[in-house]
Amino acid sequence: MNYNEMALKMHEEHKGKISVTSKVAVKTRDDLSTAYTPGVAEPCRKIRDDKSEVYRYTAKGNLVAVVSDGTAVLGLGDIGPEAAMPVMEGKSILFKEFAGIDAFPICLDTKDTDEIVETVKRLAPTFGGINLEDISAPRCFEIERRLKEELDIPVFHDDQHGTAIVVSAGLTNALKYVGKEFSEAKVVINGAGSAGISICKLLLELGVGDIVLVDRNGILAVGEEWMNPAQKEMAEKTNKEQIHGDLKTAMQGRDVFVGVSAPNIVTAEMVGTMAKDAIVFAMANPTPEIMPDEAKKGGARVVATGRSDFPNQINNVLVFPGIFKGALEARATDITEEMKIAAVRAIADIIKPEELTEDYIIPGAFDERVADNVAREVAKTAIEIGVSKLKKAE
Amino acid sequence: MNYNEMALKMHEEHKGKISVTSKVAVKTRDDLSTAYTPGVAEPCRKIRDDKSEVYRYTAKGNLVAVVSDGTAVLGLGDIGPEAAMPVMEGKSILFKEFAGIDAFPICLDTKDTDEIVETVKRLAPTFGGINLEDISAPRCFEIERRLKEELDIPVFHDDQHGTAIVVSAGLTNALKYVGKEFSEAKVVINGAGSAGISICKLLLELGVGDIVLVDRNGILAVGEEWMNPAQKEMAEKTNKEQIHGDLKTAMQGRDVFVGVSAPNIVTAEMVGTMAKDAIVFAMANPTPEIMPDEAKKGGARVVATGRSDFPNQINNVLVFPGIFKGALEARATDITEEMKIAAVRAIADIIKPEELTEDYIIPGAFDERVADNVAREVAKTAIEIGVSKLKKAE
Repeated sequence: MNYNEMALKMHEEHKGKISVTSKVAVKTRDDLSTAYTPGVAEPCRKIRDDKSEVYRYTAKGNLVAVVSDGTAVLGLGDIGPEAAMPVMEGKSILFKEFAGIDAFPICLDTKDTDEIVETVKRLAPTFGGINLEDISAPRCFEIERRLKEELDIPVFHDDQHGTAIVVSAGLTNALKYVGKEFSEAKVVINGAGSAGISICKLLLELGVGDIVLVDRNGILAVGEEWMNPAQKEMAEKTNKEQIHGDLKTAMQGRDVFVGVSAPNIVTAEMVGTMAKDAIVFAMANPTPEIMPDEAKKGGARVVATGRSDFPNQINNVLVFPGIFKGALEARATDITEEMKIAAVRAIADIIKPEELTEDYIIPGAFDERVADNVAREVAKTAIEIGVSKLKKAE
Repeated sequence: MNYNEMALKMHEEHKGKISVTSKVAVKTRDDLSTAYTPGVAEPCRKIRDDKSEVYRYTAKGNLVAVVSDGTAVLGLGDIGPEAAMPVMEGKSILFKEFAGIDAFPICLDTKDTDEIVETVKRLAPTFGGINLEDISAPRCFEIERRLKEELDIPVFHDDQHGTAIVVSAGLTNALKYVGKEFSEAKVVINGAGSAGISICKLLLELGVGDIVLVDRNGILAVGEEWMNPAQKEMAEKTNKEQIHGDLKTAMQGRDVFVGVSAPNIVTAEMVGTMAKDAIVFAMANPTPEIMPDEAKKGGARVVATGRSDFPNQINNVLVFPGIFKGALEARATDITEEMKIAAVRAIADIIKPEELTEDYIIPGAFDERVADNVAREVAKTAIEIGVSKLKKAE
């Protein structure tokens, strides 16, 4: 049986994947009077008198909403909020499995930017954090920006930043393995949607000086007419020599290829034009931009994909559980660039330099050390930079 | 330790009461590929192609949102959405405990009628039903009416209808016990807010011909100037002889007193002016309109309260778990008057006529027969009257 059939069977048998359960017993009159009326009025009063006590007496502090409008689901595109439910339930149970976070799917019956923003704001009292998921570009940029500004709980668009963080962690170790530095690495990113742009921004922050972004229309360069506003902004920050052309041109002499694009669009020959000890992250799913053996044939020294059946799986599950756990533990008001970079280092540092091999530059998805390490470093950073709401005594 | 202290301890120790858990294992790569990518895409496709399949492959069909704006919480009033969380979490775990329903608290950061309606509509794809809770009158009427019209999932304001149903079930048996019929019973209801009006409407449907509603300003009667629109409507449907006056006047000669009002406002003397074999439902919480022993002293034959430490506890927990379970099982598009009346009978019928005593006219809160009986009768009724979305084969 293949995964599709197994998935149908699993989802039908259990009627989805999430369940809401009670942490307390409700078997006796005393239980009922403590968990519900009349006793429950007392924590209500405490929170009425001091709103921050909601973190002490309710589930809020460990609750994350997994919010989607179903417009950019996996490779399926705009399939609507109902059809997005299996993915959002899946994300929710990964939060639980990997970080003990209670996450709940919220699939919204609107695609309007303003409506999504105002709806999430109205829901916010229940939640300790908001994970935006599978919302199509460019709306996802504005939605995240506005929610980050207007809410005092962390908001994180995983498709952008989770991907950027795990790619950056993998690249940190891949460069270390081949003996190159971020500052000297020449990078080409193929795919200039929300994931590609987010990866590009984080790599710039990590000190990469020379990045070229490529869209299906070609290389992002100042003056190209087909670019959207987000791409125009990136064209100015990247492409040092302002070259024009296609992916083939862009790959020549590059140290690193990062693909978040489409299957089978890179050939061994194209990899052959890259610099010595080339690094290829081919993350189109399920079929990569180039299969690992082909990339190796072309001369790549390190190859990573999004798949679990090849070495070096670049998987967001290494990021979102730990980064939310850290943000929630620190009661952070935001997930900042500093916290993202702390997460990059926390993932990369799991593997000691002497343990690195071409097939082991990123921890496995089930490496139990990752989420805790990420959470600890992210929480520490949140407190250091002053975005934590924790009172001194806590 | 009293319930207040016990409640604080319980809520702090567990950080609230709800948890979101996984119904499937995520321990291996195969699990991950089945519950998440790539396998999860298959149930997504099925739902994209036929939206009703969301009930087959996701948790929606057993998920109820417990929605509040925190404006009318217990006896505490408008305490805000954060402070309402302990109550909504409590309600959620009661859904689970009593009917196996996955219920999730949604505490909204808005009190605006239009905004609440549109927000709940946008959330609807995730949920199989909406339980409105602790939303103040008169907004609660319009919010419920509009959501019932505009959504194809059941919407139920428990403070109105849950209370009305359990009171009606208790009265069914109390009248049976004292040998009176609904059609001949003269009823006075004290408290003309959302609960009192809802009780009044359901009793009218059950055939009670003579009801007088009393507000803190006096008896609802055509021409009284202080009435709000909902009360004006009720003044025309009740008060057969259009008497004017206060509660004391209203109680004279009545067979039944129903109080959803304030503590200690009824005296034994007032009960003494009621008809022979008077029935007193004094449900102000935690202190009833009159204590049971006083009511008995005044001549009441059957007394019920909202409290668990006296006989005949009138508790919504006998209603909402079963009525939602039935509605969800039948995949009902609505909870109709017929379904509510089915719930009344299903609760009342738990006690056989020969088992009735003055202290046993309503099943106990933990009577395990109730939710299943209510669910079965409600589902049957939903299918009979044609509000079920179930296909013939199911």
